[in-house]
This record gives sequence, C-alpha cells and structure tokens, in this order.
Amino acid sequence: MTIIAAYSGTFDPVTLGHNDIIHRAARMFPKLIVAVGSNIAKNPRFTLEERCALIRAAAADLKNVEVIGFSGLVVDFAREHGVTVLVRGVRNGVDVDYEKQMAVMNRDLYPKLDTVMLTPSPQYAHLSSSLVRELAGLGAPVEKLVPPPVIAPLLERFGRPTPDAGTRRRRR
Amino acid sequence: MTIIAAYSGTFDPVTLGHNDIIHRAARMFPKLIVAVGSNIAKNPRFTLEERCALIRAAAADLKNVEVIGFSGLVVDFAREHGVTVLVRGVRNGVDVDYEKQMAVMNRDLYPKLDTVMLTPSPQYAHLSSSLVRELAGLGAPVEKLVPPPVIAPLLERFGRPTPDAGTRRRRR
Amino acid sequence: MTIIAAYSGTFDPVTLGHNDIIHRAARMFPKLIVAVGSNIAKNPRFTLEERCALIRAAAADLKNVEVIGFSGLVVDFAREHGVTVLVRGVRNGVDVDYEKQMAVMNRDLYPKLDTVMLTPSPQYAHLSSSLVRELAGLGAPVEKLVPPPVIAPLLERFGRPTPDAGTRRRRR
Amino acid sequence: MTIIAAYSGTFDPVTLGHNDIIHRAARMFPKLIVAVGSNIAKNPRFTLEERCALIRAAAADLKNVEVIGFSGLVVDFAREHGVTVLVRGVRNGVDVDYEKQMAVMNRDLYPKLDTVMLTPSPQYAHLSSSLVRELAGLGAPVEKLVPPPVIAPLLERFGRPTPDAGTRRRRR
Amino acid sequence: MTIIAAYSGTFDPVTLGHNDIIHRAARMFPKLIVAVGSNIAKNPRFTLEERCALIRAAAADLKNVEVIGFSGLVVDFAREHGVTVLVRGVRNGVDVDYEKQMAVMNRDLYPKLDTVMLTPSPQYAHLSSSLVRELAGLGAPVEKLVPPPVIAPLLERFGRPTPDAGTRRRRR
Amino acid sequence: MTIIAAYSGTFDPVTLGHNDIIHRAARMFPKLIVAVGSNIAKNPRFTLEERCALIRAAAADLKNVEVIGFSGLVVDFAREHGVTVLVRGVRNGVDVDYEKQMAVMNRDLYPKLDTVMLTPSPQYAHLSSSLVRELAGLGAPVEKLVPPPVIAPLLERFGRPTPDAGTRRRRR
Repeated sequence: MTIIAAYSGTFDPVTLGHNDIIHRAARMFPKLIVAVGSNIAKNPRFTLEERCALIRAAAADLKNVEVIGFSGLVVDFAREHGVTVLVRGVRNGVDVDYEKQMAVMNRDLYPKLDTVMLTPSPQYAHLSSSLVRELAGLGAPVEKLVPPPVIAPLLERFGRPTPDAGTRRRRR
Repeated sequence: MTIIAAYSGTFDPVTLGHNDIIHRAARMFPKLIVAVGSNIAKNPRFTLEERCALIRAAAADLKNVEVIGFSGLVVDFAREHGVTVLVRGVRNGVDVDYEKQMAVMNRDLYPKLDTVMLTPSPQYAHLSSSLVRELAGLGAPVEKLVPPPVIAPLLERFGRPTPDAGTRRRRR
Repeated sequence: MTIIAAYSGTFDPVTLGHNDIIHRAARMFPKLIVAVGSNIAKNPRFTLEERCALIRAAAADLKNVEVIGFSGLVVDFAREHGVTVLVRGVRNGVDVDYEKQMAVMNRDLYPKLDTVMLTPSPQYAHLSSSLVRELAGLGAPVEKLVPPPVIAPLLERFGRPTPDAGTRRRRR
Repeated sequence: MTIIAAYSGTFDPVTLGHNDIIHRAARMFPKLIVAVGSNIAKNPRFTLEERCALIRAAAADLKNVEVIGFSGLVVDFAREHGVTVLVRGVRNGVDVDYEKQMAVMNRDLYPKLDTVMLTPSPQYAHLSSSLVRELAGLGAPVEKLVPPPVIAPLLERFGRPTPDAGTRRRRR
Repeated sequence: MTIIAAYSGTFDPVTLGHNDIIHRAARMFPKLIVAVGSNIAKNPRFTLEERCALIRAAAADLKNVEVIGFSGLVVDFAREHGVTVLVRGVRNGVDVDYEKQMAVMNRDLYPKLDTVMLTPSPQYAHLSSSLVRELAGLGAPVEKLVPPPVIAPLLERFGRPTPDAGTRRRRR
Repeated sequence: MTIIAAYSGTFDPVTLGHNDIIHRAARMFPKLIVAVGSNIAKNPRFTLEERCALIRAAAADLKNVEVIGFSGLVVDFAREHGVTVLVRGVRNGVDVDYEKQMAVMNRDLYPKLDTVMLTPSPQYAHLSSSLVRELAGLGAPVEKLVPPPVIAPLLERFGRPTPDAGTRRRRR
C-alpha cells in the first residue's frame, strides 16, 4: 500500500522555506499532498485558489506532488485522502512545543495519522509568510524570500506604496 | 493560619487540563479558590457567570474549592481574599518564561503572594481553551477535551455550522 | 571611523528595562541612536513624537545618545544613518529565536549591519511595554515599571477608570 | 525505488519510548533499519550485541524492521545501506536544537540523507535510557519503563544492591 | 491532615538561590522537609552530613523546616516521611523540561506525590552549586553566592590555591 | 577612551563558527581580544599555546585582534586588560539561558564588564568544538568545519585510526 503524506499550512504565500520542505518531503514519501487550509479566520491576503496556484507553480518540477485546498479539520482531510503521515516544518523550540501538542491531538482524533517534523535548511530558517508579507509591504526586495513564480504576484499585492511606507522617512 | 491558594485564569471554557490542575492543587492546599478573570479585552465566548458555573460543575466533587469571578489585578484579588499562593499551569518553556515574569511582577506588587507552577498530566498537555474553541468550531468531537458538564454547552455554543465549516469540503 | 549603533523598537512607552539597555549600550558604543519605529500597524497608544520625547527625557543624562523616529525597514534606517550595529534586548529563548531570524534577514538585506543582543538586568527581565500598558490600565502602581518622566504621562493616558476597572470587584 | 529509513541511537537499553518510535516509523516507511551505535566512548552498560538483541525482541512483531549495529559516522552507515531518511525522536526544545544541528551536519556530509523528527507519545515523553539505568540502579520498578523482553536483563544487570542502594535509609 | 512538602536536591553546597526557595516554600506549606540526596555518583565535595548541617544553619530561623539526608529514590523517601508535595526550583526552560519528566515519573511510581515548581527570585536566578564551586575554586568572592554560614566552609574547602589558580596570569 | 572587547572561550580548536564571530566582532569594536581559557579541568586536546596559535593563524587578516591565553576568572582578565565588553556566541535558547546567568554573575563581580551576544551565521550554527573533535575522530572530512590553518593540525591529532574507527564496519 502506498503511503501518502500531507504537508499542511496556510501558505499565504508559499516561501522559499516552504518550498524547501516540499521538495525534501517529496523525496521521502511516494506521494505528497500539499494541503492548503482556507483559514478564513486568519483573513489571508491571497485567496485559497491563488495560494494553491502559486504552490503548483513553485513545485512544478515534482511529479509526485498534488496541491489541494481544504477547510475544516486536517484529520478529516487526511481521512478523505488516505493520508497517514502529516509533515510539519519546525524552526525552533516554540514551533516544536506547538506541533507536539497538535500531533497528540490529531492522533487522538484519528489514530492512523502520525506526524513528522522537518527543520528548514539554515538559509531559510528565518522565513515565514507573515515576515514575507511584512517585508513586502515595507518595500524590501523579495527575491531571496519566495520562489520565482511568487515574486510578481507578491509585489503586485503589496508593492503599492502603503500609507505607512509612503512616509518612510525619519521624523523627529 | 490556613493557607489559601488561588488558581487564576480565563477558563473560556474550563478544559480537562484545567480540571486536572484544580483537582491536584486541591490536594496540596487546605483551601483553593479558582479565580476566574473577567478579561473583557479577550472577548470571551462564555460569560463570566457561565465560565464560573461550568467550573463549579466540573469540580463539584471537591469540598475545599470555591469559584469566584473577578476583574482587575490578581494581586488585588489575592489581598481581598487572603490568598498567599498563586497556582499556575505551565505546559512548556514558553509558558514558563511568561509565568516567571508575572510571578516576579506580582511579588513586586504584593510581596505576600508567591507563585507555584504545576505541569499538566501528559495526556492533557496539548489542551488549551483556544484549541478547544477552535476544534469545537470545526466540528471535532470534544469528549476528550473538556469535563462532562462542559460538553453540551460547548456544542451548543460552537456546534452550529459556521460559514467556514459549512464549506468543509475540498476545493482545488 | 566611529561606529554607530542603533537600538530599535516601538517603545510604547519606554520601560525601565529599555532604559537599562539604552544606558548600557551607550557605554559600549561611541554613538547610540534609539530608533523608534512608527509601527502604525501596531496601533500604538502614544504617538511617535510622544514616544521619542519620553525616551529623550529618560536618557537625558547620556551625551552620546540620539532619539530618532522612523517608519519602513530598519535596514533602510541603518543605511541612511551610517548604523552598522543593531542592538536588541532579549529576555528569553522565545525572544532569541525571533531575533536570530531577524538578524539573518537584516544581514541578507544589508550586509554591513550586524546585530548584538543584550539581556536585561534581572530586576527588569519581566518588563515589556504591553505589560506596562496592561498594568497601568488595571490601576497598578507604575513607579517600578517605567522611568520617572514616563510616570505622569502613563497615568494620564491609562489611569482613568476604564469600564473594566470600574467593576473591579468580585462577582460570583 | 524503495525508501529506506534508519532510526539511530545507542539504545542502552531500548525503552518503551524508543519502541513507540520504532513501531510508528515502521508504519511510515516501507523499510526501517534500527541503527545501533557502538558508542564505545559512552561506555554503555549493555554490549552492542545485547542492545541489538533486546531491540529485536521488542520489535519482533514488525516485519519491515531490521536491527544493525555500527560504529563510525551515521552518514557512512546510511551510504552503505542505502538509507535516505534518518528518524530521530525529540522530546523537547533542547533535543530539537541538537537534532537540528546534526541534521544540517549530516546533510552537508551526505546530501542524500535527510532527517525527520518524531515526538514520543505523551506517556513516554519522560523516558530516556539514562533515566532507566538510574532508576533501575536505585531499585525502582521498571515495568513501565522498558518493553517486556528488557525487564529481566535490566534487573539482572542493575538490580543487585549497589553500595549506594544498600544504605538506602535516611541518615540525619 | 497536615500536608508535608519536601524540597529535594544535592545542595553541594546550599546557595542563596536554594535558601530563597526554602524560605518561600516554608511559608506555603505547614511542614517542609529539605531532602538532601547522598548522590555518591555525583562525587560531592561536601559530605552528606556537612551539606545537611550547612542547610540547617542557613534555615535556622524557620521553625517548620527539617533537614534530612537520604539515598535511593525520592519516592521512597516521600512514602517513608508522609510527603505528598515535592518542591523543585526551576530557572529556565531546560530545567522545566527535565523537571516535567521527573514529575511524571514520580507520579507514576507514587501517585500520592505531586510536584510544584518555584522560580528563584531574579537576583538568584544565575546561581547553582556547580557555579559556586567553580567560582570559589577560581578565587572569586562568595558573599553574594551562598548564605553567611556557608562562606567560611566554602573558602576552607576551595580557597586554597589550586594548581590552576596558582598560575592565574596571562600566558601568550 | 577606546572600548576593548573580549571574546572568551576554550577554542579546542577554533571552528568556522568561532572565526565568523571573531571577524564580525572585530568590525564592531575598535579592539578585540580573543581570550583563550586554559580550562585544565576540561582536559583540552590542544594545549593553550596551540589553541592560541591556531586562532592567530585563522584571524591573521584582522589588525585589531589580539589573542591572549588566561586562566582564572574572566572578570580578572577583563580588569587586567581594560576589557569592558564581553562577546559571547549563542546558538539557541539553551546557550542563552546559560550566558544570561554568566552575564549577571560577571556584572556582579565586575560592574564595568557587560556582555553582548552574537548568533552565528546560519551555515555555522551547528558547529561546536566538541562536535568537530568527535567528527574528526570518526574520520569525517573537516574542510567545512574549521578554518584552513586548523585542518592539518586537527587531522594530525585525531586522524589516526582510533580503536573505534578501526572497526567501523557493521556488526550484527
């Protein structure tokens, strides 16, 4: 029986760190689903469809990866798609404390689903979607933050001078 | 002189983890007050009165426990009720860092008040009120999350299909 | 060439912990700029001008310290003002994890800018601006939280009985 | 191509926590090798052969698990046995910090080898081989610490009254 | 029934940090036993009798404190002396991770025994017996490290110039 | 008055991570002393003179760096050499907890001496002298671990087949 793994997140938008985890997990498991949570409560800046499309573009070189949006519980998603391994990226002890709690919770809800954690490659360890959004909003260069297909959409969404950025000069 | 301990929190709602701490602290101190903060700023989903009532139901077997709502500073509550020991539950290093800071602050404000930390039993270490609310809102079973008297009120408050949960099917 | 260091933050308002870092960093570097971020997104309770003025009052005894407000990226501020050392205060492992990520990010964006971390003196390790605001709003004494020039403005801004504080009596 | 995973450690002796990880990893990967490091420098209390035999007994129900002793670098072991995934158990932030460093090191030395981390089930999160050895030496019951086949060998090795345990009565 | 608490450790020797915890715990519980582990494996620099005597001298002002040496398991000590609360000092997340594991282990071995953690007062948070021994051996002043009755014995034991300290001058 | 900083450690031997910190600190302070502790208790594998010589070779490009061996307290070294800033490298929360304690201790012993912490560049975050010694002893390539002048001495000291490495083949 083929093992199916899922890498879940909001990916608003996918970063070079996410993309690193996707590529590495795709070498570990015969099939990998990137499960993109709708997460309406988080009020994402890209729609679920946009977020899925950007990941598909970033991971276009991988043949065993599928990108699927979902809402609701990740355990329900796992049940529906035959997923038995949940892949999570952890950067530090805080991430681990949180993931440890979620892993126990998910195993309680669906005992067939187990969780593995990957640490990002060091050069990506500082990246997160919220940092990317904040930096893009402040006008920082984004080439070293997101995969190439994400650069233009990110600038288009955030690159217009915001009220804050427009006054980006010192005031005493 | 009888030592009075207080276990303070928002308890929105009380979880099996909170209940575990309440029962264990009640064996350590002759009298235990569960001090329920009104915390209007946090915009709780259960009213202060509801939160107190749910704890009273969950801890009905304990004779030396009283449940009291309060607003304002916990040190003022302690002064008013003769509390000299503050009980706090800590799950991990992040919790500890925060509690350490609050313990020093509270001792500065009211030197008679000292703080002890308890770690939850392992099977409850992943629980928090916010996780319970999130899972209930997503339609997860809650029997392993909250004490029996909390199950029905929790489902009643969160169980109706929310806009998000209503679309809980995969979208590509 | 004179080394210029910057200690950046929101300082809403400056605490005794910030002031401790400012005084210690001013002994380490020939020139220290306190860089006050406008941080409109954080919706600060004191205006940028007020926050700068309170720091200037608290650090009036230091001859090599300048206080400058800014918005935008801290690396752009550094470039504009010839800053090569960024000073950050860290209280615990969570702070460090965050600062480590930001330090790498900033060095990527502006390789001339490096980051050093200072830990607060133990008696101030529990202080943060958000804790100060919360305690002031609840009517706590603030003399041991902020430098003397900040006491009156803080009470003036937060000291009026809020709806919450006005009902600060126990309810059963 | 079949993916081969390895779970490496000293296993002096294998605990219920290790055994939990072995059983869970064996469901995630088509083939799992338990790689038992000789670790002469650590001066283990059980020989390499004994440690391997105890794991084989504990995991006798698993058809896709092989137990192999080795000395030297784990990357050399991986290269020799076609291992591309290294499985590691992490209990807390300290473990993670260490494993993160080793994962980067190992990927540097052998880019085909990647690392995944599993957290133990909560009821085993407190277990380690050194704790087991210490408790066994002090005469504690070991049934809840190690798999059934390890109980007798553990008591035989540690259960004889040591000089310290022989005086296990209070002295004032 | 009177609750009996125990504060266990090696106390080689007792520091100002330990003494702070002893005094604070003695206010929380009607009776406090300081349980001094023989810990022959750690090869302590003061004998069990010396370590007990120094604690008795440091805590001579406390009427509800008894100091008792022991070897073996702390749960056996607790059973023998009617102890139901174990007091532990924790300085940081690493300490907490360890104590959390030991608390679970001890509750498994003796369900009547529960553990509370206290954080040291900030001015003592950096102290440990090993640091005290190291600093005393290097000739540092010890007045701010240990209670007054410990100063002379500590200097007597460590104060003689060691081979290392005797050459305490720079070598290029 | 020129500020003198010191970067202290055992450097047994200096790694690429240490060398990174040395080069970055040398840009922050007008004068930097690398203070090499004799640390006889740690039983170093390179003599104090060898360790100093290797650092001098690795940092030969820096004009404002001096390398000085010492034994005894770092605060005595600081007093003797006019050092007012102590530079420490921290990789993670565990390191920070330790350094925080030492910084407070050192400021207690010598108030003029303050401590700053630098985090290593991500590509070196996994390196430590003990890891380098272990890997060299196991026959790993060391080019990505230590500065070029350290490679030959490291291989000479550790590269001879040890009893362990000599049997580096699987045993069942």
